[in-house]
Amino acid sequence: MKIDGVPSRTIWLQPDGWSVGILDQTALPHVVKRLTLKTVEDAAHAIKAMQVRGAPLIGVTAAYGVALAMRADPSDTALDGALVFLAEQRPTAVNLRWALNDLRERLAPLASKERAAAAYARAAEIAEDDIETCRRIGVNGLRLIEEIAKNKRGEPLNILTHCNAGWLACVDWGTATSPIYHAHDAGIPVHVWVDETRPRGQGAALTAFELLHHGVPHTLIADNAGGHLMQKGDVDLVIVGTDRVTACGDVANKIGTYLKALAAHDNRVPFYVALPYSTIDWNVEQGADIPIEERSADEVLRVAGRLSDGAIATVAISAEGTPARNPAFDVTPARLVTGLITERGLCTASREGLLSLYPERKSVAA
Amino acid sequence: MKIDGVPSRTIWLQPDGWSVGILDQTALPHVVKRLTLKTVEDAAHAIKAMQVRGAPLIGVTAAYGVALAMRADPSDTALDGALVFLAEQRPTAVNLRWALNDLRERLAPLASKERAAAAYARAAEIAEDDIETCRRIGVNGLRLIEEIAKNKRGEPLNILTHCNAGWLACVDWGTATSPIYHAHDAGIPVHVWVDETRPRGQGAALTAFELLHHGVPHTLIADNAGGHLMQKGDVDLVIVGTDRVTACGDVANKIGTYLKALAAHDNRVPFYVALPYSTIDWNVEQGADIPIEERSADEVLRVAGRLSDGAIATVAISAEGTPARNPAFDVTPARLVTGLITERGLCTASREGLLSLYPERKSVAA
Repeated sequence: MKIDGVPSRTIWLQPDGWSVGILDQTALPHVVKRLTLKTVEDAAHAIKAMQVRGAPLIGVTAAYGVALAMRADPSDTALDGALVFLAEQRPTAVNLRWALNDLRERLAPLASKERAAAAYARAAEIAEDDIETCRRIGVNGLRLIEEIAKNKRGEPLNILTHCNAGWLACVDWGTATSPIYHAHDAGIPVHVWVDETRPRGQGAALTAFELLHHGVPHTLIADNAGGHLMQKGDVDLVIVGTDRVTACGDVANKIGTYLKALAAHDNRVPFYVALPYSTIDWNVEQGADIPIEERSADEVLRVAGRLSDGAIATVAISAEGTPARNPAFDVTPARLVTGLITERGLCTASREGLLSLYPERKSVAA
Repeated sequence: MKIDGVPSRTIWLQPDGWSVGILDQTALPHVVKRLTLKTVEDAAHAIKAMQVRGAPLIGVTAAYGVALAMRADPSDTALDGALVFLAEQRPTAVNLRWALNDLRERLAPLASKERAAAAYARAAEIAEDDIETCRRIGVNGLRLIEEIAKNKRGEPLNILTHCNAGWLACVDWGTATSPIYHAHDAGIPVHVWVDETRPRGQGAALTAFELLHHGVPHTLIADNAGGHLMQKGDVDLVIVGTDRVTACGDVANKIGTYLKALAAHDNRVPFYVALPYSTIDWNVEQGADIPIEERSADEVLRVAGRLSDGAIATVAISAEGTPARNPAFDVTPARLVTGLITERGLCTASREGLLSLYPERKSVAA
């Protein structure tokens, strides 16, 4: 999508044909800063320091990290070393492990002189796959938006979203944002309510940044405000992303999603979850079985932002000595989810719905 | 309640018998700063600059402001001038107008030399009335907590609260916090989940400060977290305050209250609202008829706090040019409210419930 009017991606191969460009997401939303990764160490640092974030983007970065390692030294030792080194940067990132395993399987059997080219090719393929998956989510979500827009008689359609399931978490398009970008680009008037998403503020920092730069009308709100806006009839549709969907359609997503789903249900606002196939966890049945990551209390106690002189700083919002808790995700039960939007189409949040789109999983999920 | 172990109030008559002490709430939670009001201008500034806040406290401060004015000049002209001057500091504060009208009625008929003493006496009486009302809310809420605590077998009872309906908004005790302080002081183990309450962060800044200083176990959480904690069985009771309760029991309170009420309902967690009689608006039937104040977008776009060097600063959390909306309150429908706690006892959130405690309103509310 666009930054300062220029079509952009979160990661790309530089014109030199081997170094890798990334958008430094730790500088967002205050500064647009692009970095060049030239070594596997650069790639590892980008992952660990969260210069890149979001499951798909972490996977692509890891794949390019392996490519950079193979360019420097394509030996078995170097390959094993790079895989272990990259994996330990974010120990719980499923997509990171998936990408590294994929690279291992492809590169290990090859002659060492073929490995770098194969790694670059595969990294590019993973990136293009992600873009295509996100694009299809957008096309499928667009149909839903077109349907709902019919009732608006040309008035802007108000879509609420939570956290950042946007292109900054992917390579392009995003998941929850892809239908929104497709609708906007197709000339359907849309307006997005952007939840701040405390404690890390990804809505305020990233989603609002994305929409501002791509020119999509939007308004930042406190996480507390969504229910009231729904009561007032000011929300036509909710679309959020997800970190994991269980086999029966329960949705784990950023903390606070459940509260918005309750409000949507109470006010008969359609509540949709956008996701790629890779987010479906066919091995977990109930959302209650998903372990919820507890993050640092510091994220609750402090807020980072831009001082009036442009410097970045962190302020403490409570008295010294205040204890805090920081569960990072919650689970929205399937009964509150109107539907799922995937790269294959729309379905209900249920085993039947998911299997209607992914019939090949019937034997596994039975 | 206590600050640094010392029993404190938000406003008090100084030992000199005429000047008025206040706790400067704009410095909280980072610095405990006490100020002395010596003139009606001082009192007006305290109200306008929100050095005092919360309906009851604003009313008491205004009453003392009239007393200070009468001490300087008890003429009719000075009285009228002080009343008009104080009223315009917070044009929408109902309690401010109520206190000033009360003072006008009492002082206008008096000889000028009697006015200062009468104003001081009435200001003290309004303060003591508020303390007694809050104390009774606490005693009534304590019975509820005792009842629920029976199921906890000595484990701490987890109470979630939103915003600051604490003693800092009153003179002492608070409304939603009064049952909590009474339970804690009675030796019942309680633990409070404190909602941050974006955008102004009164939970993080004020409620957490209160509980820390009074020694009540508590944990600050993002506004997004309460639903998840309820799903996990970690909340036994919700108690919030309110800005206005309608004749049929709908509750207007700080934005985000409605979302917590939905989650409490979905998880069968008792949801109570603590209030003094003065908060009941017998003239408004439905919560949907309550106008919702829209505050400055800046409160959403920026967060104030303490830098690592102790200085107070404000940081912008989103890209420059991000638009924001800031509805300050929402309405929780009576169907989601388990009960109301008032100075007269507990009742259901309904016309029948309210009239059972306030039978003298039957003719008005019929």
